Amino acid sequence: MSPCSFRLIASDGEARCGEIATAHGPVATPAFMPVGTQAAVKGLAPETVRAAGADIVLANTYHLMLRPGAERIAALGGLHAFMNWPRAIITDSGGFQVMSLSELRQIDERHVTFRSHLDGAMVELSPERAVEIQALLGSDIAMQLDECVKLPAPRADIERAMRLSLRWAERCKRAFGDAGSGALFGIVQGGDDAGLRQESARALVDIGFHGYAIGGLAVGETQQVTLRVVEEVAPALPAERPRYLMGVGTPENLLDAVARGIDMFDCVLPTRNGRHGVAFTRRGPVSLKNARHAADPRPLDETSACQAARTYSRAYLHHLVKAGEMLGAMLLSEINVAYYQELMAGMRGAITCRGFADFQVQAKAGWAQGDLAPL
Amino acid sequence: MSPCSFRLIASDGEARCGEIATAHGPVATPAFMPVGTQAAVKGLAPETVRAAGADIVLANTYHLMLRPGAERIAALGGLHAFMNWPRAIITDSGGFQVMSLSELRQIDERHVTFRSHLDGAMVELSPERAVEIQALLGSDIAMQLDECVKLPAPRADIERAMRLSLRWAERCKRAFGDAGSGALFGIVQGGDDAGLRQESARALVDIGFHGYAIGGLAVGETQQVTLRVVEEVAPALPAERPRYLMGVGTPENLLDAVARGIDMFDCVLPTRNGRHGVAFTRRGPVSLKNARHAADPRPLDETSACQAARTYSRAYLHHLVKAGEMLGAMLLSEINVAYYQELMAGMRGAITCRGFADFQVQAKAGWAQGDLAPL
Repeated sequence: MSPCSFRLIASDGEARCGEIATAHGPVATPAFMPVGTQAAVKGLAPETVRAAGADIVLANTYHLMLRPGAERIAALGGLHAFMNWPRAIITDSGGFQVMSLSELRQIDERHVTFRSHLDGAMVELSPERAVEIQALLGSDIAMQLDECVKLPAPRADIERAMRLSLRWAERCKRAFGDAGSGALFGIVQGGDDAGLRQESARALVDIGFHGYAIGGLAVGETQQVTLRVVEEVAPALPAERPRYLMGVGTPENLLDAVARGIDMFDCVLPTRNGRHGVAFTRRGPVSLKNARHAADPRPLDETSACQAARTYSRAYLHHLVKAGEMLGAMLLSEINVAYYQELMAGMRGAITCRGFADFQVQAKAGWAQGDLAPL
Repeated sequence: MSPCSFRLIASDGEARCGEIATAHGPVATPAFMPVGTQAAVKGLAPETVRAAGADIVLANTYHLMLRPGAERIAALGGLHAFMNWPRAIITDSGGFQVMSLSELRQIDERHVTFRSHLDGAMVELSPERAVEIQALLGSDIAMQLDECVKLPAPRADIERAMRLSLRWAERCKRAFGDAGSGALFGIVQGGDDAGLRQESARALVDIGFHGYAIGGLAVGETQQVTLRVVEEVAPALPAERPRYLMGVGTPENLLDAVARGIDMFDCVLPTRNGRHGVAFTRRGPVSLKNARHAADPRPLDETSACQAARTYSRAYLHHLVKAGEMLGAMLLSEINVAYYQELMAGMRGAITCRGFADFQVQAKAGWAQGDLAPL
């Protein structure tokens, strides 16, 4: 396996700033990766995602293998061409959504079989097929297939799934081989059990991956548990490899996890909340449904780098949300993705000049101040 | 009333090419005006509408008077500022949608009263209030309040509504006064009755407006009836004033009506059909739902001036439509609005060089050829 293309630029305490080189351009870390589940970030044209500052998006293998199909996308030139996104793409393995979306799933040593939520067809997904699909998509960063257990769960279930995920990790690495042009990440499992997490991390590092993800979090456990697991796992991972906390989270989650050594994140929150009328801002979340905005001519944040956040009045955004206009979802999704990117850029800058602790305090003070205080 | 700011540039047969000067920039005619019912063209940011080539959009007084309210928009600096659209805006009078959307409506000489479809409140709309609302919105082109009868209808009903509309036209002009900074258009009514249409047109011209609309069409009658009425009415209208055919229509309708002397159009078709997975192209309408596109790497039209029509593959658009992704509706709405604008620009060019007859033949041949023929 070729050396990882991650370069550490600076660190400040546990927080790290770096860059992942990919065939589709560099990814500055800490990085937030907007989610393009079905080969589209919901409500945003790819040029808008890029203009917001994203270097990389995540696409979901589960959805794309079912529709339009990995072979179809490969025949069309791969996912970058298909969705007109020239920058980096990370794909998950499909495992998480097999667990959360499909029916009649059966898992055995060899593979998982499940009924498609689209047409009821029975589908198989093995570690080898998961790697093959991600290669067909042309992913820059592929993930191993794993089994993710919803918390809370009995220790025995967590342990069984963790060990199966380790065996699948080996099979994924073998299938990826030296031919894989991108990177392959292993996924640390083990639920909320410190011992199992350590064992998973050590075994994955022994197998050797381009990067390491912490999986099985953001699945119902408290924020306290999430952070404890991150604190326990991150130091067990090699410093020279990127660390990815899957499915996280709120702006505060990102700040707290970067402080504990995480480099990469993905989450549907900025676009999902945007569709539901909520904006993320440096003064915390703002619900545009609230009647207090109805006559407010001020933009959401006139200091934002995002044109939409500077331009449209709260009154107009309120109107669009109340009227159910698509444009409301579009603008708030754009504003939120841009806010997440600004937050990550701020963290990178603060880490580089060793001011991350101050940055944390200031960001949290802004969120705590709330949107009702004068800007 | 100040002289109309319409300038006739060229004509070819009955077809005319000109320019309407407004306080928010010139409007090249024949013009297609995308519909921004609730102060937003559905699925499109204002800069996208402008980039597609639109000089002017239409907003609906009925919707905006109910939500967020005309006084609210005025307090926020008017509709241009509210929706971040710096170019021209035309507003309808609200009359048509009172008839089609509201309940419990009662019409008398003085005004129409109706129950809001949003909250059930009783609302009054008089000719004077319709003019006042449009002034509050800051409309560049306001429309008189009229009563529109759905066809087919008994002649007596059509006649009564036409005469009431004439009396309301006088009241609208009086209310508009000399203070109105923009233009006020009268609306020719009279259903499918040639005599009533002539009488309506003559009476409106005697009152004197900046422009004249043909109303009460595109309400259920055949295309043959629409064109006959246009043929009868257009010559009765002054050549030095713009003529607006309300609520029309398909690309073929636009071509046929321009050939009969019409200068302005509005219609929800490009955005509505875009949301339903249908693209308008120079080879006629294309349903992206159709499975024949599933593996097709070609763009919709690589000769289009619209970047989205040149860039995204049919396979991707098909996928987005099948997957119900917002981006599908957004891209097809953009492609359709751009196609309508390209069509109007083509007509203007053809009229200017007195080649409109050839342009008509070629456009119709393209549509008739269909999308299955090689491009």
